[in-house]
Amino acid sequence: MTTRPPADVGMPLDAVDTPALLLDLDAFERNIARLAGAVAGIGVRLRPHAKSHKCPVIALRQMASGAVGVCCQKVSEAEAMVYGGVPDVLVSNQIVGAPKIARLVALAKQARVAVCVDDAGNVAALSEAASAFGVRLPVLIEINVGADRCGVEPGEPALALAKQIAASPGLRFGGLQAYQGAAQHIRDYTKRKEAVDAAAEKTRRTVELLGHHGLACEVVSGAGTGTYRFEAVSGIWNELQAGSYIFMDADYLQNLGPDGKPGSEFEQSLFVYATVMSRPTKDRAVLDAGLKALSVDSGMPRVAGMQDVEYIRASDEHGKLTLHDPHRALPVGSKLRLIPGHCDPTVNMYDWYVCYRNSRVEALWPISARGAIL
Amino acid sequence: MTTRPPADVGMPLDAVDTPALLLDLDAFERNIARLAGAVAGIGVRLRPHAKSHKCPVIALRQMASGAVGVCCQKVSEAEAMVYGGVPDVLVSNQIVGAPKIARLVALAKQARVAVCVDDAGNVAALSEAASAFGVRLPVLIEINVGADRCGVEPGEPALALAKQIAASPGLRFGGLQAYQGAAQHIRDYTKRKEAVDAAAEKTRRTVELLGHHGLACEVVSGAGTGTYRFEAVSGIWNELQAGSYIFMDADYLQNLGPDGKPGSEFEQSLFVYATVMSRPTKDRAVLDAGLKALSVDSGMPRVAGMQDVEYIRASDEHGKLTLHDPHRALPVGSKLRLIPGHCDPTVNMYDWYVCYRNSRVEALWPISARGAIL
Repeated sequence: MTTRPPADVGMPLDAVDTPALLLDLDAFERNIARLAGAVAGIGVRLRPHAKSHKCPVIALRQMASGAVGVCCQKVSEAEAMVYGGVPDVLVSNQIVGAPKIARLVALAKQARVAVCVDDAGNVAALSEAASAFGVRLPVLIEINVGADRCGVEPGEPALALAKQIAASPGLRFGGLQAYQGAAQHIRDYTKRKEAVDAAAEKTRRTVELLGHHGLACEVVSGAGTGTYRFEAVSGIWNELQAGSYIFMDADYLQNLGPDGKPGSEFEQSLFVYATVMSRPTKDRAVLDAGLKALSVDSGMPRVAGMQDVEYIRASDEHGKLTLHDPHRALPVGSKLRLIPGHCDPTVNMYDWYVCYRNSRVEALWPISARGAIL
Repeated sequence: MTTRPPADVGMPLDAVDTPALLLDLDAFERNIARLAGAVAGIGVRLRPHAKSHKCPVIALRQMASGAVGVCCQKVSEAEAMVYGGVPDVLVSNQIVGAPKIARLVALAKQARVAVCVDDAGNVAALSEAASAFGVRLPVLIEINVGADRCGVEPGEPALALAKQIAASPGLRFGGLQAYQGAAQHIRDYTKRKEAVDAAAEKTRRTVELLGHHGLACEVVSGAGTGTYRFEAVSGIWNELQAGSYIFMDADYLQNLGPDGKPGSEFEQSLFVYATVMSRPTKDRAVLDAGLKALSVDSGMPRVAGMQDVEYIRASDEHGKLTLHDPHRALPVGSKLRLIPGHCDPTVNMYDWYVCYRNSRVEALWPISARGAIL
């Protein structure tokens, strides 16, 4: 259930209880400004993905810096955003099943809400529910641009679906969802760019085909933190969905730049704060943050600011560290910051961001859509 | 924050919204009865680990079948148990830092609460806080019996700590925590038994050494679902901490029995219910349950009852299936049950157990200690 916050506003950072999800406000704000600056004046809109942060406070910050709205993956996530004051949400995902579809179309009476589809039966169900609620729901067709996950194939299959949408009384054809998720974590810069180039070609072909049939793609949405600069200048996409850029994680930090070096233009702003709870040997320490405090699906977390300390294994409530420097002082009670391997599923474990600046807690932001998977 | 339940009591199972955490009550009840029966009359107590279920309703069911109380890993977990009616909790873990220690000793005024230690400074901090609250806290020494995680080494280091505890005004020496966590998932039966035999020898030596110094080990606690039968008949351990046996998971199901075959005496009772949200090709389907609906730290989930359908990849909100049988019908909207790779961190993502029997929802149990990591 909703957990107590691990900190109070005004508290020094080192008094924060652990495990806690820390947000470095300075780095976070620079990341928001950096992405806004990178796309300013080139004619693409920002619609950052709220699945990363699940927090309307952050969504409104992104909109204050020029974002037109946010993306969500689930209806419950979209509800949390709308109820938190976000007026414009694209559910960049398929919504299946009568209960969720009813909530989706009802939400569209309270805010600007759009959804993605890749299935004729789903289009019919959405249209029927939208008509029943008296709304006309904008619908984007998800096309498979290389991730081989959801989405119809580009070209003719997309055209068939677009015609069906255009003929559906409860729906309005809104454009394409063309997200190359598999490209985000390709380490090599050139190969990453090639994956997006291939996706761009598939998308361009589909936009043209639909245009020849009088079906204009008002929105062509896609891109992530790993590739957004390619999509931004492609002339194909007009909405960018990057989400992780506000936080970053150990996985993204392994992507290589054009110079072949790892790193990112964005700064690490998200950390899991952890305490040494056991120090059994010279070279071993155990943290109070394990599988229930961070997600290891993309690898182990890194220890911020300590190159000689390695997080080698996570069990349910423990994180095992190897200390490569025998002189490293790290007694029981020491607190340190971990860079999560993967930010999105880590955030989903917490109810609160402990936001700090100058080593002092400045805000506790609720993660309103924590656990929102329906 | 606390999510809405995905079901109503009385609903047919196939009307439950997804992703949902399902509990097959018949299998669950048989698992509880089976462990109780396996240790009946052999002079060991059951103290199942509540870190697996985080639910006082389940803890009280276990106690109704003979368990003397539960184990917890965190103070907040112990609070949830005590406030849910559980009168006896062993925190089988080190509790470090003034805020948590204050809550721990205060909780010991409301219920029988014990804790584990492996550090002299921590012993001093516990004693001081316990004295301040006017309680005498039972303390177990965690010894390292092969998992190389927390714990002092067996023998002399344990003796030194036991003497310190015995001389601490706020504490009472309660015995040993000797959990061989690394043994639980050794696949080979004989090697698994050998790991426990080695742990037993280390524990026996330590119990004897402490006894020679007048320090009786009232409690010797350990064992898990993978090894409990060895500890139960060892003559060393007198409390068993198995937790996963009520649910089971894909990881435990890979352990081999004495006949060299995989499987378990316990039944799979815990499932993640998921819906096919996209069906782009003959051999590919996509589920609405990914990294935020199940933990993949111990491998991908299995699809219950469908040998020909393989869950091959989890992303944040998607699970990709490969359909090995081209004739498998699995249209958009189909619901299926997944066997999580690892039950504990999967449970920690949910607020509700959807408990069913005869394909009908019979109860919604709150996962009161979901996210309780402080």
